[in-house]
Amino acid sequence: MADAVHHDKTARQLRLLSDALDSGRLGPVRRLVNTLSPAEIGNLLESLPPAKRNIVWGLVDPEDDGEVLVHVGDDVRESLLAEMDHDEIIAAVEDLDIDDLAELAEDLPDTVIDEVLKSMDRENRERLEKVLSYDEDSAGRLMNPDVITVRTDVTVDVVLRYLRLRGEIPEHTDHLFVVSRRHQYLGRVSIAALLTHDASTPINELFDDEQPAIPVDTPSSVVASMFSDHDWISAPVVDENNILLGRITIDDVVDIIREQAEHQALSAAGLDEDEDMFSPVARAARRRVLWLGINLCTAFLAASVVGRFEDTIEKIVALAVLMPIVAGMGGNAGTQVLALMVRGLALGQVSRTNANLLLWKEARVAMLNGLALGGVLAGAVWLWFGDWQLSAVIFAALCANLLFASIAGVMVPLTLKRLGFDPALASAIFLTTVTDVMGFFCFLGLATLVLLP
Amino acid sequence: MADAVHHDKTARQLRLLSDALDSGRLGPVRRLVNTLSPAEIGNLLESLPPAKRNIVWGLVDPEDDGEVLVHVGDDVRESLLAEMDHDEIIAAVEDLDIDDLAELAEDLPDTVIDEVLKSMDRENRERLEKVLSYDEDSAGRLMNPDVITVRTDVTVDVVLRYLRLRGEIPEHTDHLFVVSRRHQYLGRVSIAALLTHDASTPINELFDDEQPAIPVDTPSSVVASMFSDHDWISAPVVDENNILLGRITIDDVVDIIREQAEHQALSAAGLDEDEDMFSPVARAARRRVLWLGINLCTAFLAASVVGRFEDTIEKIVALAVLMPIVAGMGGNAGTQVLALMVRGLALGQVSRTNANLLLWKEARVAMLNGLALGGVLAGAVWLWFGDWQLSAVIFAALCANLLFASIAGVMVPLTLKRLGFDPALASAIFLTTVTDVMGFFCFLGLATLVLLP
Repeated sequence: MADAVHHDKTARQLRLLSDALDSGRLGPVRRLVNTLSPAEIGNLLESLPPAKRNIVWGLVDPEDDGEVLVHVGDDVRESLLAEMDHDEIIAAVEDLDIDDLAELAEDLPDTVIDEVLKSMDRENRERLEKVLSYDEDSAGRLMNPDVITVRTDVTVDVVLRYLRLRGEIPEHTDHLFVVSRRHQYLGRVSIAALLTHDASTPINELFDDEQPAIPVDTPSSVVASMFSDHDWISAPVVDENNILLGRITIDDVVDIIREQAEHQALSAAGLDEDEDMFSPVARAARRRVLWLGINLCTAFLAASVVGRFEDTIEKIVALAVLMPIVAGMGGNAGTQVLALMVRGLALGQVSRTNANLLLWKEARVAMLNGLALGGVLAGAVWLWFGDWQLSAVIFAALCANLLFASIAGVMVPLTLKRLGFDPALASAIFLTTVTDVMGFFCFLGLATLVLLP
Repeated sequence: MADAVHHDKTARQLRLLSDALDSGRLGPVRRLVNTLSPAEIGNLLESLPPAKRNIVWGLVDPEDDGEVLVHVGDDVRESLLAEMDHDEIIAAVEDLDIDDLAELAEDLPDTVIDEVLKSMDRENRERLEKVLSYDEDSAGRLMNPDVITVRTDVTVDVVLRYLRLRGEIPEHTDHLFVVSRRHQYLGRVSIAALLTHDASTPINELFDDEQPAIPVDTPSSVVASMFSDHDWISAPVVDENNILLGRITIDDVVDIIREQAEHQALSAAGLDEDEDMFSPVARAARRRVLWLGINLCTAFLAASVVGRFEDTIEKIVALAVLMPIVAGMGGNAGTQVLALMVRGLALGQVSRTNANLLLWKEARVAMLNGLALGGVLAGAVWLWFGDWQLSAVIFAALCANLLFASIAGVMVPLTLKRLGFDPALASAIFLTTVTDVMGFFCFLGLATLVLLP
């Protein structure tokens, strides 16, 4: 419900736009589009099918082009860049901040990069090349080298006069960074402190040397955690010698947090968070078929277990009717455990230290729910087939499979993590393989032992 | 991989803590805990089983108690509050900001609330009561009434002198808000502008009246979108008469974005994002059994479809072996479509305007993958059972079920949304019901038509 209003607003814009586009009246479309922020335009473009997307893209104020490109996923960005000629791309990107330019860099044609580098002054060119030399998902790529630094030995008055002289302050500057003569990071002084202290106060009485700087090779997910753990607006980035290289600001961190959440939601279904909703059919199909192919293999594995019990099923067909219930309930119960584990691992709350306790807790939860749901299921089976032995078999099989599900739900993501894989990505496939195989095996195996003469 | 380092850091802290706790040496534990920020302490407490959690909670600096309570989930908060006596709770919460206090309010005993209200001055008491009068998930609950306002007719110099006189500036103040004599919101003036303009510049030359204020009843998910669309650090909240009530800051918005992501991930498995990993077994089982019970009902529905074809299965047992493959593959393919749709709906990118196009695209993707995967499956079935008619049946059934899966993947979340339900919550259950029922029905029905003599 909470999204309804915003959804409605975007939906209304979409409808207005669609109507205007259908009727060919581009004036109102242009006006509507250019009341939006670059992020909103990006969102709008992502929600349009390719033909309309290209028309709207042509109407966006060229001044916003660069920022819009930063705010869309890789797929959509590629489709937008394909609509622009060389000069348009250069005009769009050359005024971007260095961190934004770095984000776009690998999607831009090499000739564009070369030309943009050439158009920059030497300082900015070196800065951009430096930023690009760091790993894609690291603090080095997120940082902007445009930072205001001060020294300890000046007074508030000197700093305030310097700022006035400078005439421009980078966005989201809540702190100035205090550095040594060799540009080593010493601490930070808040703008608020500058505003509320006497003009003659020296900076070394005001500055805070407690906030740690972010090492340049810190993974971006860790940068995001540091920001939300400390409520930072901006934070300094340093190299291994504590030399200040740049700063990261909260707006980029918010984007990371959103991307991480999308990655987690989509990778569980074997999808890429940069997927364009309207990507060409052949491309979309090709991207999904690998994940579905892996699932097909695991489904065959489960089917081969069923195949071992063909004789039993031939004699008691009710087993074929009921076996998907046992397998499916295991999958559902395991998915619950998995969801908790994946969150716990992402937050760093789960580790070897407490994994045994979690396993023991989840096993007990599974036994309790096995008793409850198994009881209901056994009763229903008795009503349906009137065979109390069959009821007893399905009761025992469900309890066993829920137990296996809870163990798999805890162990699969932990093991994947330890092996260096992303637990959000592959856990579900392994889990349902376990619950299908064990569900079929327990149910049909028990039935063979108990029910066959 | 990206989380590995941070995970390792938290894991190391956890291990150190556990070892120290096991050996009863509380001094090092206290020192370690009190180097952490309140959010980090909250994270740590959530990762500890109850007995250790209570010991560590007792070692937290009482000054941080209130902030830590704000940073943990409802379940854990309840367990922490249960360890505190009346006076400790009051000491912990009475110095909190009004927005934080409002967030805790409903978990606190009434006697504590009364006493805290009594200890406040009249202005703050009225402010807190006002904040508490708004909906839990609305801008009114998120805002902090502590705002610096200025009037248009003063100069930069007057404002700067006022700030110095005030001596303290609320955290995350990047803008001052410009109001009329009747406290109506007119616009904002950035601290950066104050710092870089001449002291004699009047505010009415500097202030920005383009940024819209947030209506007090705006849902918090929309507030989050507004912040990330505009890269805001703080934003004003107004009532229906445009009177300035307070402001929302980015730190609270980051918490909302994280909570939304957790909600989406966990609600798909029928879980609550406030669930404590170490909640008591009976409680955890009770919470999960409802969702599992609903899944049991849908599994019965699918089983009853299989039950209609008992005669067919009795004659061709291979059908029982293969039918879970058809149903399961439909579920997997549908889950992919669903994941894209849920994201699109959350971002406002999907609406009636483009739903038909998406449906058509997904249907074609499903047909392509049906041909590819159905071909592989038919080949494997031919190798296994040597029956080309059976291969043809499973090929057709898989194509049909993937098509149904794509339709359900698009239509189920759209329909739930239109009916006012959260598509992230219930979509998966409906989807797998469709793919199981249609998978069994298509495969067994076709087999009955084609394979039976």
